Amino acid sequence: MPSHYTTNMRFKFPILAICLEIIIIILFGVFVGYETNDGGSGHGHSGNNSVPDKFITPYPMFQDVHVMIFVGFGFLMTFLKRYGFTSVGINMLIAALGLQWGILMQGWWHSHSHSIKMTVLSMINADFSTATVLISFGAVLGKISPVQMLIMTIIEITIFATNEHLVVEILKASDVGASMTIHAFGAYFGLAVARVLYRSGLRNGHDNEGSVYHSDLFAMIGTIFLWMFWPSFNSAIADAGINQHRAIINTYLSLAACVLVAFAVSSLVQEKGKLDMVHIQNATLAGGVAVGTCADMNISPYGAMLIGFVAGSISTVGFKFLTPVLASKMKIQDTCGVHNLHGLPGLLGGIAGIIATSMGAKKDYSPTMQAAALASSVGVALVGGTLTGFLLKLPFWGQPPDQNCYDDSIYWEVPEEEEAHGGSAHGDQNTLKSDA
Amino acid sequence: MPSHYTTNMRFKFPILAICLEIIIIILFGVFVGYETNDGGSGHGHSGNNSVPDKFITPYPMFQDVHVMIFVGFGFLMTFLKRYGFTSVGINMLIAALGLQWGILMQGWWHSHSHSIKMTVLSMINADFSTATVLISFGAVLGKISPVQMLIMTIIEITIFATNEHLVVEILKASDVGASMTIHAFGAYFGLAVARVLYRSGLRNGHDNEGSVYHSDLFAMIGTIFLWMFWPSFNSAIADAGINQHRAIINTYLSLAACVLVAFAVSSLVQEKGKLDMVHIQNATLAGGVAVGTCADMNISPYGAMLIGFVAGSISTVGFKFLTPVLASKMKIQDTCGVHNLHGLPGLLGGIAGIIATSMGAKKDYSPTMQAAALASSVGVALVGGTLTGFLLKLPFWGQPPDQNCYDDSIYWEVPEEEEAHGGSAHGDQNTLKSDA
Amino acid sequence: MPSHYTTNMRFKFPILAICLEIIIIILFGVFVGYETNDGGSGHGHSGNNSVPDKFITPYPMFQDVHVMIFVGFGFLMTFLKRYGFTSVGINMLIAALGLQWGILMQGWWHSHSHSIKMTVLSMINADFSTATVLISFGAVLGKISPVQMLIMTIIEITIFATNEHLVVEILKASDVGASMTIHAFGAYFGLAVARVLYRSGLRNGHDNEGSVYHSDLFAMIGTIFLWMFWPSFNSAIADAGINQHRAIINTYLSLAACVLVAFAVSSLVQEKGKLDMVHIQNATLAGGVAVGTCADMNISPYGAMLIGFVAGSISTVGFKFLTPVLASKMKIQDTCGVHNLHGLPGLLGGIAGIIATSMGAKKDYSPTMQAAALASSVGVALVGGTLTGFLLKLPFWGQPPDQNCYDDSIYWEVPEEEEAHGGSAHGDQNTLKSDA
Repeated sequence: MPSHYTTNMRFKFPILAICLEIIIIILFGVFVGYETNDGGSGHGHSGNNSVPDKFITPYPMFQDVHVMIFVGFGFLMTFLKRYGFTSVGINMLIAALGLQWGILMQGWWHSHSHSIKMTVLSMINADFSTATVLISFGAVLGKISPVQMLIMTIIEITIFATNEHLVVEILKASDVGASMTIHAFGAYFGLAVARVLYRSGLRNGHDNEGSVYHSDLFAMIGTIFLWMFWPSFNSAIADAGINQHRAIINTYLSLAACVLVAFAVSSLVQEKGKLDMVHIQNATLAGGVAVGTCADMNISPYGAMLIGFVAGSISTVGFKFLTPVLASKMKIQDTCGVHNLHGLPGLLGGIAGIIATSMGAKKDYSPTMQAAALASSVGVALVGGTLTGFLLKLPFWGQPPDQNCYDDSIYWEVPEEEEAHGGSAHGDQNTLKSDA
Repeated sequence: MPSHYTTNMRFKFPILAICLEIIIIILFGVFVGYETNDGGSGHGHSGNNSVPDKFITPYPMFQDVHVMIFVGFGFLMTFLKRYGFTSVGINMLIAALGLQWGILMQGWWHSHSHSIKMTVLSMINADFSTATVLISFGAVLGKISPVQMLIMTIIEITIFATNEHLVVEILKASDVGASMTIHAFGAYFGLAVARVLYRSGLRNGHDNEGSVYHSDLFAMIGTIFLWMFWPSFNSAIADAGINQHRAIINTYLSLAACVLVAFAVSSLVQEKGKLDMVHIQNATLAGGVAVGTCADMNISPYGAMLIGFVAGSISTVGFKFLTPVLASKMKIQDTCGVHNLHGLPGLLGGIAGIIATSMGAKKDYSPTMQAAALASSVGVALVGGTLTGFLLKLPFWGQPPDQNCYDDSIYWEVPEEEEAHGGSAHGDQNTLKSDA
Repeated sequence: MPSHYTTNMRFKFPILAICLEIIIIILFGVFVGYETNDGGSGHGHSGNNSVPDKFITPYPMFQDVHVMIFVGFGFLMTFLKRYGFTSVGINMLIAALGLQWGILMQGWWHSHSHSIKMTVLSMINADFSTATVLISFGAVLGKISPVQMLIMTIIEITIFATNEHLVVEILKASDVGASMTIHAFGAYFGLAVARVLYRSGLRNGHDNEGSVYHSDLFAMIGTIFLWMFWPSFNSAIADAGINQHRAIINTYLSLAACVLVAFAVSSLVQEKGKLDMVHIQNATLAGGVAVGTCADMNISPYGAMLIGFVAGSISTVGFKFLTPVLASKMKIQDTCGVHNLHGLPGLLGGIAGIIATSMGAKKDYSPTMQAAALASSVGVALVGGTLTGFLLKLPFWGQPPDQNCYDDSIYWEVPEEEEAHGGSAHGDQNTLKSDA
């Protein structure tokens, strides 16, 4: 049984969540308005309603990104047999907090005044900012409390927005699909946190750290929605026209090539040649990550496919051979294998961007600055994640004891299952969910 | 075993469904054509194909609403352990019938002639009209037959279209996201039906009135898709330009604030501080309902977030404390808690609209008329629902006996599960679905 | 236990997949570039970025089609109790390979030079081409190996593109929603393959050839997404303006009418009047298939609904009465019943197109040529499928022995389920997924 002293969230979690929400609402009251066509105060009625239509043009792409954040990331993590409530539920909580905080953080960096004018584009960028935390969440999934996740969300998005500003505005680097600023950043931030929070009690694994048949199918909902909408992720903030068109096509092709290679390598590295669901759920997406930085560049369709080819290979090989080594040698317990899905392919994406700009695939961008952006993203993430890890290591955040890791029931009311019949209920059981 | 006399649907259900479909097709044959750019007969070819492009502009928003109706409502109700086939299947049936009937009902009210000209906008409005029935469905889920649902669909949409006409055309009230005309209306209509159909035999609950682990995850598919696409619901019929842009932003922010508060209050009201899936599945959506009426008004971003904050609180508190009282004191057995998700937040939305218009947030709209619209929506729903309830109480509609409530197998062929092994099948069982 | 000699895919599958991907990348390197506004080489920067916006206009419709291919087809086939990994996983593999091959095949037929210029429209058409293989996949599901599926994908898409060219360019027939060129073609191709691969050992059924409760719910995810987005499928390549608008409306109405009839007939043909999930999962979609050919024609809304009415009837009746006869008399074991969902409704769609053009519903199209297109699609499919079947019958493609059909574990690592407790895991089991 969990100790109530350590894990009962009844006051610390609600108070923190409500205080954060009140603070955010006050900040929005002071700083945030609607963008209007005249760049005015957001409080006037415009005589000409036609101009803001451009604000609504990216709305379908926003919704695709929105689906990736809430369905994609949420369900991808439901692969664990008894951690689905947390995966999809706390994913939603983190993203809902993160997007509000992201609007403030990005708004202050983007605007020259304190005043922030919201558009659909702000919503796309806010959703992007939450992706970093959700990636990091994958590295520590099952081992930290909702309270810790709220704290990590605020800190990581603050640091992310700062690094993003550095990369885009100071270094003038190109990263349209955010291989560096989101994927590599989120992965290495999360891995640094996981390193600090290393649990030696889990070094031999945990009974709940695996899937069951249907949890693997739920996870595939996440995989497929991420895979399908990735072209929107990589093109949503691209310059309209040729660049955006290229970002769509390149991502589509990179992902397609990646799927074949991920399936092939998954079979190749297994003695009996069988496919492994972990690889299919994750490595098929590596092509979307890796083509991110140069998605809108003139890399030719076959160039995009080559990137997907390499990404699918290294991601699958990473899951098979690198994750166990990270855990045993480097004491990094990476629950979802974010290093293989976001870390390595994010690095690959950064390197591809350096090569592409050096070959002139996007005018006015310098390979040196691309390299500096990659170094900044990884370096800031490692330092930020390490410091955040030490803060989260303080003993009073309600973190679960080792034996209750990867178990929803420590933070959730979980319906009782009938002992005799298994998951498929018949009419004769008498288990009820309270308040249902 | 159910009595075949009462629940065998073999002739009453197919005959009713096919007769309804034939009648509808005849009415479409007489009254319904395509809208064309010249406002012509729908049978001529236009020389200028460019004008109807405006008809297709709202198509992506239509699809978002479509997903909410069919995936959102359908899967949200799959939380019951043995009622998923009905939830997602009969949801589809009701919506497919309702949208056809809605085109006729709304078309006749909207057009000045008998002739109805269809556009994508008609499809959005038709989908909206089905939402009222699906909300009411949640109040009576598990306790009525498919035959009863077909009847309720026809009656409720007819009354809904009349009240909507009254609110929009006569009272000239504003209700862009339909907090009043859809959410409050659908909830109180359904609750009135549930009151008339009160089953004392279920006053101590029912073995099947609860969830299992995976049914709660299926329900989250519904929750997340509803949550993501709610900005489309609230903005789909807004005036293009500034108003639509505001409706998107306000709904996005209200929902985000609502999530944090729903999680916080869910933990706060539980002794051990644990989160309750029922709250997360439902109360996180209350912010979308409550911001509906004033979504397109100039209420400022923080105003939208305040609405979401209050909605998340009252909805969660309602699930915890009000639903049991409704059942025991007022004899209203509200299966899905629609009072907490649509009723209370719908009222809140109506009140927010009164306050917002009184503060001048939307020109040319009067708080008095907003109040009249709210009263009309609730009053018409209660009267209409009560009368419908008495009609549905007639004994020959195939309603299930108490012991077969909340059980798909009374109206569906349900695959046999192996007795010994539970839901996860192994290769050695010998249960087959007929005709599969 | 399966024989490792026959079914271990370790080398044959990865080598085939990687070789195919390498060949495709080389062909893309030689032949494929981006379309640009000046019709140039795809390597120049355009001074005017506004023209390619037209390339991005169909992007939301592309995403709807994309969801149908990857979520719709993938999850629809998860109804089998132990074949969900293959259904959604190999579906993804086939589609990812198919879309790359489709771009090449269609590009060569469409362009007058060897050079292929990609746009979002190419992506829509490429996704379409994969649908044929996924339909055929449904006929042989559970009985063939991933290696066989890769081979079938390459061959079927090659033949499909040739037949499509014949229908559209030579016969000048109209088939906007592809009732003939995709649905009838894919169904009869797959049925011909299934006929050649007939397994007498399965003539009395198989223990795994059925569903469990939750697998039927997973399948409904596929059904609902297919149903919702079918208007996009049938209108995606229609001429912008009136034609596209009609295609949307007609498909929406045909599907709605089809749902009522499919439910009604499902109840009618069953002694106890109960609904059958197989019918609901499949026959509700037949209206989308059958209205495909004449979706953009001026058939009036009630005409579309009549098509849906007939399609829902024949599809449900087909599942109930025809599928068993096909298996026993004609030795065609049609796992998913694609004959009822795609074959018969595809034929109906072709016939509806002949009737509609003969009544002048689309100018410049001839009923004779429509009939020729239908005959060509079915004939080419039957011949192509038969020849492909004989190729796939060669004994070294790793096909499963009869007793391992419909079982993921022959090609996948499948998590062990706890013997005593069933699918819902408790904290005390000790089963782990390797490499998870």
